[in-house]
Amino acid sequence: MIRFYNGLVLEPAGVTENEVWVDGSAICYVGPAKADMPAFEREIDLKGDLVMPGFKNAHTHSGMTFLRSAADDLPLQEWLEKQVFPNEAKLDGESLAAFVKVAFLEYLAGGCTACFDMYYFPDAFVQVAKDWGFRAIMCESLTFGDDPARVYDRYEKYNNMGPFVGFRLGFHAEYTNGLDTFKTVAEAARHFKAPVWCHNSETKKETEECVARHGVSPTRLFEDMGLYEYGGGGYHCVYFTPEDMDIFARHGCTAVINACSNGKLASGVFPLKLAMEKGVNLAVGTDGPASNNALDMFREMYLINLTAKLREGDAAAGDPALILNAAVSGGARAMGLADCDAIAVGKQADLTVIDMHRPNMRPVNNVVKNLVYSGNPSNVRMTMIAGVVRYENGQFFVGEDPEAVYRTAEKYTRKILG
Amino acid sequence: MIRFYNGLVLEPAGVTENEVWVDGSAICYVGPAKADMPAFEREIDLKGDLVMPGFKNAHTHSGMTFLRSAADDLPLQEWLEKQVFPNEAKLDGESLAAFVKVAFLEYLAGGCTACFDMYYFPDAFVQVAKDWGFRAIMCESLTFGDDPARVYDRYEKYNNMGPFVGFRLGFHAEYTNGLDTFKTVAEAARHFKAPVWCHNSETKKETEECVARHGVSPTRLFEDMGLYEYGGGGYHCVYFTPEDMDIFARHGCTAVINACSNGKLASGVFPLKLAMEKGVNLAVGTDGPASNNALDMFREMYLINLTAKLREGDAAAGDPALILNAAVSGGARAMGLADCDAIAVGKQADLTVIDMHRPNMRPVNNVVKNLVYSGNPSNVRMTMIAGVVRYENGQFFVGEDPEAVYRTAEKYTRKILG
Repeated sequence: MIRFYNGLVLEPAGVTENEVWVDGSAICYVGPAKADMPAFEREIDLKGDLVMPGFKNAHTHSGMTFLRSAADDLPLQEWLEKQVFPNEAKLDGESLAAFVKVAFLEYLAGGCTACFDMYYFPDAFVQVAKDWGFRAIMCESLTFGDDPARVYDRYEKYNNMGPFVGFRLGFHAEYTNGLDTFKTVAEAARHFKAPVWCHNSETKKETEECVARHGVSPTRLFEDMGLYEYGGGGYHCVYFTPEDMDIFARHGCTAVINACSNGKLASGVFPLKLAMEKGVNLAVGTDGPASNNALDMFREMYLINLTAKLREGDAAAGDPALILNAAVSGGARAMGLADCDAIAVGKQADLTVIDMHRPNMRPVNNVVKNLVYSGNPSNVRMTMIAGVVRYENGQFFVGEDPEAVYRTAEKYTRKILG
Repeated sequence: MIRFYNGLVLEPAGVTENEVWVDGSAICYVGPAKADMPAFEREIDLKGDLVMPGFKNAHTHSGMTFLRSAADDLPLQEWLEKQVFPNEAKLDGESLAAFVKVAFLEYLAGGCTACFDMYYFPDAFVQVAKDWGFRAIMCESLTFGDDPARVYDRYEKYNNMGPFVGFRLGFHAEYTNGLDTFKTVAEAARHFKAPVWCHNSETKKETEECVARHGVSPTRLFEDMGLYEYGGGGYHCVYFTPEDMDIFARHGCTAVINACSNGKLASGVFPLKLAMEKGVNLAVGTDGPASNNALDMFREMYLINLTAKLREGDAAAGDPALILNAAVSGGARAMGLADCDAIAVGKQADLTVIDMHRPNMRPVNNVVKNLVYSGNPSNVRMTMIAGVVRYENGQFFVGEDPEAVYRTAEKYTRKILG
């Protein structure tokens, strides 16, 4: 058993001064010190630091680290057509794994314990997740040219690979698929009683083109086709109408906010105020490193609140506690990781320890606001997944030397980009 | 002498693989290794890390750390009147010094070597700067009720306190002063041949009210009154017109961008595209921790580019190299620290070492874009001011225990806020 003591804990009801004990992969006790203490393998003096659930990066393309700082400051279509697509065509499983490892290191160093990923070479991807003990949920990425029926095999295969890997039904987006794909995925959703995910209403253009093509918004189209019978959600959701939000609320769907990406690609700002009014479930994602460029959940939380204030022209807009909750519990719910969403007995020990002794966390007027408005990855003291410490005080514990990971990623990057 | 070797250097002309040698407070050599090497006190193996000029935080109110996370999510007027003004009234020199120390620790941990500060209790403020060897330039903060003639004494006094302290002419803003103040400051500017600074066009309301009051924009009013005969500049400059930008360009004035603060207070977005078209000098500031809330120049650089893209609706807007330059050299020029602006022979050794071995810096497709789009304070390996290491690998070297600094700041914070 591992004991965390002498610090703060972000519990579902608020910040406490409890202890947290971890047995195997799970949290076995949250409460005050006991008179009769068990034998611990390790006792961690928090010295006032904060134990909180790990961040859940609810939308990303981890394998795109090779395009970090290589595809910036271009209009969206040019970015996709000149920098992204031609270089992605040169990927293979080996290079993909190398690039994913860089992303996983960044997640760990930023207090993130799970990602909801949509990209290529799923076998190579899940191998890294299994080898490193990092929770990686894949979302099906069907586009034109893919056989939508593949979702049946993939669903069975990747949902039976142990605790670190999962697969969710989905497709890339409305504008990259035809109605036949949506029909097949809707049938699969009914078959598996499973939620469905995709990029949705990221840009004005794509949203308007859907209306021109189908007479309704992407969200309404997906509802009409029965895709949300078991929930699911959308990535980005920038151009959601009130009706779209109603549809999401009705089906318990989650809108995953990607504020940095939407800013960097000048797509727009997520309508947070509207989503809050409609009571839509929220989660937070970084999107891929080609469109962000960091994989930093602190920056996302900050930017979601900040851009909400700018969008509404109202300094009172946004809600740091809500967005922190979206970045941890909301993401876990979205990804189907219901047992990784909180610091509570029986939950998986997927957690991070926040260093409250860095100057940006002082004074401590409000722990939650300090995290959302001032936090950054330098505050991450430890990241633990399923009870195993994977990152602590700048060191990684993933069974591989980070320098070797960087060298390999650099080698493949040069091979692809020159 | 101290030797930095085996890494990268951000020099004025670009990134090189030179060595950097520091002798006393200054840089004495930048170039390749020599056959005949001098004796060094310390040789720092960069291992591929980057030496760059320290960030210059060109607009801040360091003493406001006590309000971090205590005054958020309120409309600007309510924020000022309910949270800021009444609590600031409880400050004294002792508490001010305690709060400033927290800010200085945060600057050091974020690679920042100087700040351009506007706040109260200048004697207490400069004492911390001198004791800690942190470069702190003060800007006069005249408002209604202050005697503007005080600038003469202050200018002489604080500009003769050694290399770490300086004083620039200025006043709080147009809307907090009358014409008599501007006249007195303009006379002082002529007397000292000195630049003049103030908050300028931060909000739409204040800018419109100036036009209603004086028939011209604040910038035009200041030019008309002769305040910019020796240059200077403005903080925020969100509602600058093309004419305002022309005035700044004509006088070599600097617009200090405060993107996080302008977002968090919903003030608006700085017109970067217009400023670039007009060739206006730029610098970067965090503003105070009550309106940001972090003092993180990485986040500022990112947000300036990101909000420029959103403002223009164009992913190609912004310019990471320009903004990085604004955050280091532009700030130094603005503050009158001309010898702290670059890694070059004869310049002061005010520098930071960026850890390129963190996953967010990999792969290295473009060092500058990695810094601006992916960097965060966890990448700061060392911060040196005037040749003295003040921060390295998480440790501070300021002659005081950070824990004691935090405890004192917490004590005074509780005394003021309850």
